Amino acid sequence: MLKFDEQKQIDSVNGALALRPEIEKVVDEIQNRGFDAIFFIGIGGTWASSMQVEVYMRGRSSIPVYVENAAEFLTTGNKRFTKDSIVIFSSVTGSTSEMVKAVDKAHEIGAKVFGFIDKPEAPMVKQCDWCISYPMNEQLKFYMVANRLMYNNGEFPEYDKYNAEMEAHLAQALVDVEKEADEWAADFAKKKYEYFRANPDMPHYFVGSGNQWGATYSYAMCYWEEQMWIRTKSITCPEFFHGMLEIVEAETPVTLFIGEDEQRPLAERVKNFLPRICKNYTIIDTKDYELKGISEEFRGSISHLVMHAVNNRVDAHMEAELCHPLEIRRYYRQLDY
Amino acid sequence: MLKFDEQKQIDSVNGALALRPEIEKVVDEIQNRGFDAIFFIGIGGTWASSMQVEVYMRGRSSIPVYVENAAEFLTTGNKRFTKDSIVIFSSVTGSTSEMVKAVDKAHEIGAKVFGFIDKPEAPMVKQCDWCISYPMNEQLKFYMVANRLMYNNGEFPEYDKYNAEMEAHLAQALVDVEKEADEWAADFAKKKYEYFRANPDMPHYFVGSGNQWGATYSYAMCYWEEQMWIRTKSITCPEFFHGMLEIVEAETPVTLFIGEDEQRPLAERVKNFLPRICKNYTIIDTKDYELKGISEEFRGSISHLVMHAVNNRVDAHMEAELCHPLEIRRYYRQLDY
Repeated sequence: MLKFDEQKQIDSVNGALALRPEIEKVVDEIQNRGFDAIFFIGIGGTWASSMQVEVYMRGRSSIPVYVENAAEFLTTGNKRFTKDSIVIFSSVTGSTSEMVKAVDKAHEIGAKVFGFIDKPEAPMVKQCDWCISYPMNEQLKFYMVANRLMYNNGEFPEYDKYNAEMEAHLAQALVDVEKEADEWAADFAKKKYEYFRANPDMPHYFVGSGNQWGATYSYAMCYWEEQMWIRTKSITCPEFFHGMLEIVEAETPVTLFIGEDEQRPLAERVKNFLPRICKNYTIIDTKDYELKGISEEFRGSISHLVMHAVNNRVDAHMEAELCHPLEIRRYYRQLDY
Repeated sequence: MLKFDEQKQIDSVNGALALRPEIEKVVDEIQNRGFDAIFFIGIGGTWASSMQVEVYMRGRSSIPVYVENAAEFLTTGNKRFTKDSIVIFSSVTGSTSEMVKAVDKAHEIGAKVFGFIDKPEAPMVKQCDWCISYPMNEQLKFYMVANRLMYNNGEFPEYDKYNAEMEAHLAQALVDVEKEADEWAADFAKKKYEYFRANPDMPHYFVGSGNQWGATYSYAMCYWEEQMWIRTKSITCPEFFHGMLEIVEAETPVTLFIGEDEQRPLAERVKNFLPRICKNYTIIDTKDYELKGISEEFRGSISHLVMHAVNNRVDAHMEAELCHPLEIRRYYRQLDY
């Protein structure tokens, strides 16, 4: 398999899950100190991950948890953000200028900041009141925070069972998804590449909701646009029916992400409608993957990780089809702006 | 001028502004009763308007005001939504199924509902605890609610001056914008139409932030996609720099909406960057319009209405160029789904 190191990926996920005692210590301290609200702040891909953890908690927890885009926080601000608020964020490089400034602003207001920064040597590590440095697995880290917050708040009685399952099975289940998806992904990438060569201007549409929305938004923008230079548009499932449906025709390329959280019915509505007006659609449904060892009741909470695993395979094959190394950027961090 | 009835538009805006005593009565009653949070709930265009009023209040008011997408509220729900919460929404027809169900759900929880429904005969009017029926001007109605909420909360001392100015000058200022924009809009529509005919697959990009984000999102989706059947993608100004910029090239059609609220600097950053990588961009800046009688300090609060007035002219000319009546839908409300 292209660009696939099974053991490395298993170790990566297990290493993230092994952060649990560290994460619990920070979260317990935050909840023992007290706070008025928790703000997940991000920009670009980290904003998308923030949206995923917020929608995960929204229906489950009375803890006031909000998402802020760092650039909006710096300009519009938020009057409900106070000295008793908590910022949680993730950054790979620890150098994104909007995030550096947002953390400074949070501190000026008197709030406390909990950061996940991949690079332990980033100066931003010292900016945080609490910081955990471990590479990748941003969404998993955020959900681990969410789970502990809800457990401490009496909203997650299955916490121990949940963690036992994840720690025993998640890493293997995700590499199994990649192995299972690979052949399909090679074929999908080939068809997408051929379509793209014949129709270079046409946007590829991605539709998804719930914890798939962050996946949909960031996959379309951070992977296809930023890394592959292919036009995309992403939209949530309910919003698809309030405008975007009108530009879908028989040959319009639409990919629907279906997960297993409580917004699944919104995706199923799109799934049922699409074939009536389109024949160039693809459905990626996390339900098609086994996820050995993971209980039915917990599958929805990792749907976005399953979709990410499927898309890892698509990316590997798209890179090969395009003959375009995905680490090149035309403008991002190449120019000052 | 095409599809332009100056007196009718002046009367429409002034009629909305004249709702103020009715709106104040409802808002005062809501604040006297007390509440834990206010949720603006919408879907499609009304969700976009909800985002506009939320961002307007976010930096100005400590009142807990949130936006919910109706379909997400029906599936994920929100644990912070309680019997003491207030729903505010707007609906033209009063028949959007997600909204009808969302109001039912809010009532089941015990919350109260304040609706603006254009059609007084809609059955949904009776579903509301408070309802005001007056056609169009949704964004203006929402901002009138916001202004009263903030005034009562001691956050808008200029309330009387603000209303005096708006009631004396807003309606005329907006029709003046339309008259001033018309020639430019005819030319813009002609160029856009020509580009579209030559490049029918290419999405037209719309970029905007702050109270322009709702305008950008809904203009791209509810007008160009839904009414004109032209592909679009909309993005906020800060997110433009976190992915989308990579697919912009010399001939990519990008339209930037610049308003005068506190997120203006985010749009100016895009404005300064665009010419370096693109020559097919258009900037619509509300600052270019006089808005006679409106103080500098209040201009930002109506930037989205100014942009809407400019876009009214674009729509009129696009309809003529396309020879495609904007009221036709292919699928929306034509099929069951």
